[in-house]
Amino acid sequence: MKVLGLIVEYNPMHNGHLYHLLQAKKLVNPDYIVAVMSGNFCQRGEPAIVNKFARTEMALRNGIDLVIELPTVYAIQDAGGFAFGAVSILNKLNCVTDFVFGSESNDTNFLNTIAEILHQQPKKFDELMKLELKKGYSYPNARKYALKKFLNLQEEIIEKLEKSNDILGIEYIHSLLKLSSNINYHTIKRIGTNYNDTELKGNISSASAIRLAIKNKLDYTSSMPKVNIEILIKEFSEGRGPIYLDSMEKFVIPYLRTLKREDLEKIYGFKEGLDIRFIRAANMSGTIQEFLENVKSKRFTYSRIRRLILYAILNMKKDFIELSNTFGPQYFRILGFTKKGKELLSNIKKKTEIPFVSTASNYKKILEKILKDKDKDWKINPQLYIKQFETDILASNIYTFFYPNKLNRKSGMDFRNPIMLE
Amino acid sequence: MKVLGLIVEYNPMHNGHLYHLLQAKKLVNPDYIVAVMSGNFCQRGEPAIVNKFARTEMALRNGIDLVIELPTVYAIQDAGGFAFGAVSILNKLNCVTDFVFGSESNDTNFLNTIAEILHQQPKKFDELMKLELKKGYSYPNARKYALKKFLNLQEEIIEKLEKSNDILGIEYIHSLLKLSSNINYHTIKRIGTNYNDTELKGNISSASAIRLAIKNKLDYTSSMPKVNIEILIKEFSEGRGPIYLDSMEKFVIPYLRTLKREDLEKIYGFKEGLDIRFIRAANMSGTIQEFLENVKSKRFTYSRIRRLILYAILNMKKDFIELSNTFGPQYFRILGFTKKGKELLSNIKKKTEIPFVSTASNYKKILEKILKDKDKDWKINPQLYIKQFETDILASNIYTFFYPNKLNRKSGMDFRNPIMLE
Repeated sequence: MKVLGLIVEYNPMHNGHLYHLLQAKKLVNPDYIVAVMSGNFCQRGEPAIVNKFARTEMALRNGIDLVIELPTVYAIQDAGGFAFGAVSILNKLNCVTDFVFGSESNDTNFLNTIAEILHQQPKKFDELMKLELKKGYSYPNARKYALKKFLNLQEEIIEKLEKSNDILGIEYIHSLLKLSSNINYHTIKRIGTNYNDTELKGNISSASAIRLAIKNKLDYTSSMPKVNIEILIKEFSEGRGPIYLDSMEKFVIPYLRTLKREDLEKIYGFKEGLDIRFIRAANMSGTIQEFLENVKSKRFTYSRIRRLILYAILNMKKDFIELSNTFGPQYFRILGFTKKGKELLSNIKKKTEIPFVSTASNYKKILEKILKDKDKDWKINPQLYIKQFETDILASNIYTFFYPNKLNRKSGMDFRNPIMLE
Repeated sequence: MKVLGLIVEYNPMHNGHLYHLLQAKKLVNPDYIVAVMSGNFCQRGEPAIVNKFARTEMALRNGIDLVIELPTVYAIQDAGGFAFGAVSILNKLNCVTDFVFGSESNDTNFLNTIAEILHQQPKKFDELMKLELKKGYSYPNARKYALKKFLNLQEEIIEKLEKSNDILGIEYIHSLLKLSSNINYHTIKRIGTNYNDTELKGNISSASAIRLAIKNKLDYTSSMPKVNIEILIKEFSEGRGPIYLDSMEKFVIPYLRTLKREDLEKIYGFKEGLDIRFIRAANMSGTIQEFLENVKSKRFTYSRIRRLILYAILNMKKDFIELSNTFGPQYFRILGFTKKGKELLSNIKKKTEIPFVSTASNYKKILEKILKDKDKDWKINPQLYIKQFETDILASNIYTFFYPNKLNRKSGMDFRNPIMLE
């Protein structure tokens, strides 16, 4: 049995994503396709344009059989944390045979070489890293320069380390190595525009460009499968989107104004003076955009600053993220499945070491049951399981409040059943 | 030298307030008039419609000589805490000879009788109070019924205990008794509409009615002195108002959703299951109005619920409010003065036991200086001084963010100088 695993955000799912899915299918010829997908907040540190269930429906309607949520604690981390969480899920599912990811360079050997270095952490490389960080570079830039020196790389090659998909790709392989995973991985050349491109281009545009087009009321319809446009339009017309980080402005900035240095110091990632910068910027800024600009420096990317906002809002303390990055996800949250996906689910449910949770209403009961089950070697940390799950619930409850339609702003999205596509 | 003291909110200052001021002046014939005024948040648990400096200007332009801020910790408490803070300031100023307050009943003897009971706390009355509270009545209602039984009062007389100004009046006298103050107090019959009336009525309307008229874009101009209308229009046209609790909806509800029971338990006033009610209501509600309705019960008034929202947002813990209610305000924050007010200030500055602070930029330095001054018997609790002042600053920083004009949303209102009217 061949099972293809994918890691996606689908924010929203567009023609480029569909092309990637079809190529991956052609390459692997799988019996089933599983996608690990971000929930209501994404890796750029922003709320998703529509909620995770709407995006799950897009995935299922376009050929994915099973969608599992990447817990928020991973979904809003940098490439390393994101990749580790997502790859851990693919690995822990105990059925995924092949993993395919997009790559700008499509140079699997090169990506593998880099990942091996990150995995082995040779002393000399570590020293180079420290040196570059000391110069004030952001983490990804410091790593780029350290690798350049370590491998004595040409300028053209080093450029591969600047592309979003390749950066993620390296981390995917790095995580597979860490987990000693048997999953085969393949890359597919990314077509069309760059991840960060903000302009619509023909029928393959980036998700960023599509989100911006929606914000500016431009026509984005040539960039997405028809069924996904219908889903978007349904969400928008029922007042459940679009949501942007800007939508959360009146929450985020006053919230940050209430925090003191000692509060931020407990939150993950607030080092290198970021606590002071955040508090000062919150007090100086009238908009999120101003806030980001007021915090920004050579050392801190916008994505990192946005993610830190979310860590603060979701009260994600250091030990929570560090434990999560050590032990991996503690559950599989099922967001949706097709008929085939259901088949796959019943096949694999017996083989996993962490439980499947299909709705928030019984996640604690599942944990209790699991802990009593002596026949099976469950690998669960109960505290972490609860904290990860409750962070997902909180993320949804905050997300929901920024729906344009006030009638939809109730909490409790996580108490609904997964999407079942017959 | 006669100094008249008043306690006001001026949210906004209208003809009824002006009438009260003129009557008080006629009654006392003072050399100077001092007003203790709420800052950016008021006793009903709501942000003021325009900020404290705009409202200070209204006061000064209409005959008040000196405006001192009632620290937030008192301004947003129930009648007891509000009165204690405000009367303490009048008393600590060490120069106020006469205090005049509005009263629906205008029955000073009756108000005094009740205040004496509250002050003496006879055992039998205490028992009656407990009995009524047990029945599930809100605190003001329980007190009303206990007093009725204790004094064997007629139904008509008991009605006096239901009027906002009389309730406050009793607490003012109660506080004067507690502080063994020498200030003479007088009542003035309140004219026109009730404090809570929401309809405009001739040229004497309630502040609630005026705020509502502004919200609904109705003509409120016959209800206010011309100069105050000009101040309001200036504030609105420059995008610094009007502000309502509704304006803070996108902050308040998601903020409450982030809190856990153990967080709310530390905050003042979250007893009798209010923590659970708050969390549930925050998750169920899409608007502030819905939230208030979802928390409401016979036991909890809307004002109390709104005040509790502010305690949570401003992180006002139990011991902070309790210490404040024991030791009183730790500083006089000068919001503004006229030429005459300046004269008065230089007269009284030497006689007080707590310091005057005229801008936030040096409030800590003032404290240090004060603590070193061995010649004078300063009565300051340094921790409380800092906490009270920083709560005022935080209240302003949050308030400011809800200005309609984004360009005005910076923090730091408290760093400006007082208003000086030549």
